[in-house]
Amino acid sequence: MNAPHEGTLFMPLAQRARDARSSAIREILKVTLQADVISFAGGLPAPETFPVEALRDGFDRVLREVGPASLQYSTTEGHPALREWIAARETARGIPTEADEVLVVSGSQQGLDLVAKAFIDEGAPILVESPSYLGALQAFGLLAPEFRNIPTDADGLLPQAIDAELARGARFAYVMPNFQNPSGRTLTAERRLLLAAAAREHDFWLVEDDPYGELWYREQPPQSLRAFAPERTIRLGSFSKILSPGLRIGFVVAPRAMIEILIRLKQATDLHTATLSQRAAFEVLNSTLMAEHLPAIRARYAAQCAVMLEALEQHFPRDALWTRPSGGMFIWVELPDTINGAVVDTTMLLARAIERRIAFVPGEPFFAGEPKRNCLRLSFVTVPPARIRTGIAMLGELLRESQG
Amino acid sequence: MNAPHEGTLFMPLAQRARDARSSAIREILKVTLQADVISFAGGLPAPETFPVEALRDGFDRVLREVGPASLQYSTTEGHPALREWIAARETARGIPTEADEVLVVSGSQQGLDLVAKAFIDEGAPILVESPSYLGALQAFGLLAPEFRNIPTDADGLLPQAIDAELARGARFAYVMPNFQNPSGRTLTAERRLLLAAAAREHDFWLVEDDPYGELWYREQPPQSLRAFAPERTIRLGSFSKILSPGLRIGFVVAPRAMIEILIRLKQATDLHTATLSQRAAFEVLNSTLMAEHLPAIRARYAAQCAVMLEALEQHFPRDALWTRPSGGMFIWVELPDTINGAVVDTTMLLARAIERRIAFVPGEPFFAGEPKRNCLRLSFVTVPPARIRTGIAMLGELLRESQG
Repeated sequence: MNAPHEGTLFMPLAQRARDARSSAIREILKVTLQADVISFAGGLPAPETFPVEALRDGFDRVLREVGPASLQYSTTEGHPALREWIAARETARGIPTEADEVLVVSGSQQGLDLVAKAFIDEGAPILVESPSYLGALQAFGLLAPEFRNIPTDADGLLPQAIDAELARGARFAYVMPNFQNPSGRTLTAERRLLLAAAAREHDFWLVEDDPYGELWYREQPPQSLRAFAPERTIRLGSFSKILSPGLRIGFVVAPRAMIEILIRLKQATDLHTATLSQRAAFEVLNSTLMAEHLPAIRARYAAQCAVMLEALEQHFPRDALWTRPSGGMFIWVELPDTINGAVVDTTMLLARAIERRIAFVPGEPFFAGEPKRNCLRLSFVTVPPARIRTGIAMLGELLRESQG
Repeated sequence: MNAPHEGTLFMPLAQRARDARSSAIREILKVTLQADVISFAGGLPAPETFPVEALRDGFDRVLREVGPASLQYSTTEGHPALREWIAARETARGIPTEADEVLVVSGSQQGLDLVAKAFIDEGAPILVESPSYLGALQAFGLLAPEFRNIPTDADGLLPQAIDAELARGARFAYVMPNFQNPSGRTLTAERRLLLAAAAREHDFWLVEDDPYGELWYREQPPQSLRAFAPERTIRLGSFSKILSPGLRIGFVVAPRAMIEILIRLKQATDLHTATLSQRAAFEVLNSTLMAEHLPAIRARYAAQCAVMLEALEQHFPRDALWTRPSGGMFIWVELPDTINGAVVDTTMLLARAIERRIAFVPGEPFFAGEPKRNCLRLSFVTVPPARIRTGIAMLGELLRESQG
């Protein structure tokens, strides 16, 4: 069929297109579409939390009331009312912000693409946590920076490790301070302060990615890095976890001179984010719904996290370590380096888990440099408690079998 | 106010961010938001043509029937039913196409960003028409290719001008064969054949951008470049002109090995295009509406084009030249190089036109190299006939004043 379209590609592609590894996230999203898999792999929020009826009302109202204007091209920087709402929310949290310090983007993944375009010349050094969000490593990787790892411990990255040598020429540090993906860890306020000081001393920007900040269980995380270094922080936010990821709406907050640069880059990238979706999202965000909606999501995720932690305690090997997140969607497990003398490799373990219809994400793609092979990321948010218990028990059994 | 956020940017940005010129399209979109301006500047389709009610039904039906799934993350390649619909449409036009040769993108501007990522290493040569679509020049420009101009005449680009010297090392030729933006010209079938032969001889890809192909007035334009060189054509399509630009949904059709590469690049760029919008667009496209809707848009644009051509004949200087498009949204005017001994510069003319509340796009941003200063682009689609006559008469008067 279609023979003339077939065949290998004969032409010089850009280096980045030749390098692009087969994508972990993409394959994960595919596996999680199969209903019989107990998937701890997804970064997907629980669909039961989506405000379907409110969005249905929102889309209907916008199309009824402003019709054609909601379907026309619009300005690159975003729907004015939505920019103002975002600025007001930042301000309410103690960081005075105006609408022209906000750019609406097509999901915070696009924020990462724009940051890459703004800062990365080939070979330019950038700092990332180890481990770091794999989608950021992919977005930055397209422009071929030199990745440098900031070491981490149980409280997140170690700012004191950022010395003159590590920081030399670095354009920015990419940091997810709240309930990090993949580790679930949160950076303490003290470390935020030290990180800001390091950024000033060594003259680099801070790119703060905060998709999960609203998903705290008992208490709010420390303040945004903007509170510590407003003049050099680019903050990426998302409505994916509190409204809907399928709408693909996120935002960037930064000093206005930086926002101006990002607007120019976004215009060349996709002109603007969908007009209708921005307006409908604003309708829902600006309603009283969020006040009830967010506590319900937090309580749900806190409960499911507790179930998974209990199941891990019960079923996982005693020499395995895992994080105890205070918010967000992920637990990070570090298995022993070897089990019964055999080297542990979670990528190989995944293949065997999938045979039993359980999925997780191996640690490997979250490392910019040499990966740790004994780590894995578990998400507890889309799986009901009973299936969390079943799935973790089966994974524990798989690990015991590896042990002999 | 907000003093700590102010100030100039102190850090090394990427070269592309330092280079980015203030954006012509963006400023244009802003001017056209003012209601008292007679704007021939916009690339905006006429909002009266948007199927508001059908989309309202579509969004409502999708949210009612599949609710959470329409708000969840989805796969990068696009909604399966929409990919199939696009493939079926290509097939119906005589070029057998399967769904896995289609990628849904966030507006065809994103298609340009992905093409840039796939092909452009810094300094890599690419071929563009002269003049060319300015949004493409911006998207490609971010990755710093060497732009090489293909000369054009009244029938579009001159394929015989693509000799070994011009084509040496070229990665692709970017071509808008139907009702080109900005010139309104259409490439003849003979030239498409010759262009395909040149691409094979000199081994480069063809990037066919076709946002206006459906907007023919009396007869369909010649076949897609895919009919002439399927193995090396990347075709970009859009629903912006036939459905709604604010939805930001476009598509790419290409050999499947190329689609696989573009999918990986898109994933790192924005994960995927909005799930709900794709599903709602499919509902409308798959209805009987399009059969009535498209002929109505074509008739409207043909009539308004005729009004503008008549007004140009009546009011513009005799030594000005303009194109007579057979479809699309644009007329391209070439003024004499000098009027009464003064060099004509349409960028300066625009400033004076704006004072009289008339807007157009000067030719300058449509040229990759040395621009022609005496050209301008006029769009007739959003302005009612009476205002087209008034606006062109006023522009003509402005030109006569320059003459005397």
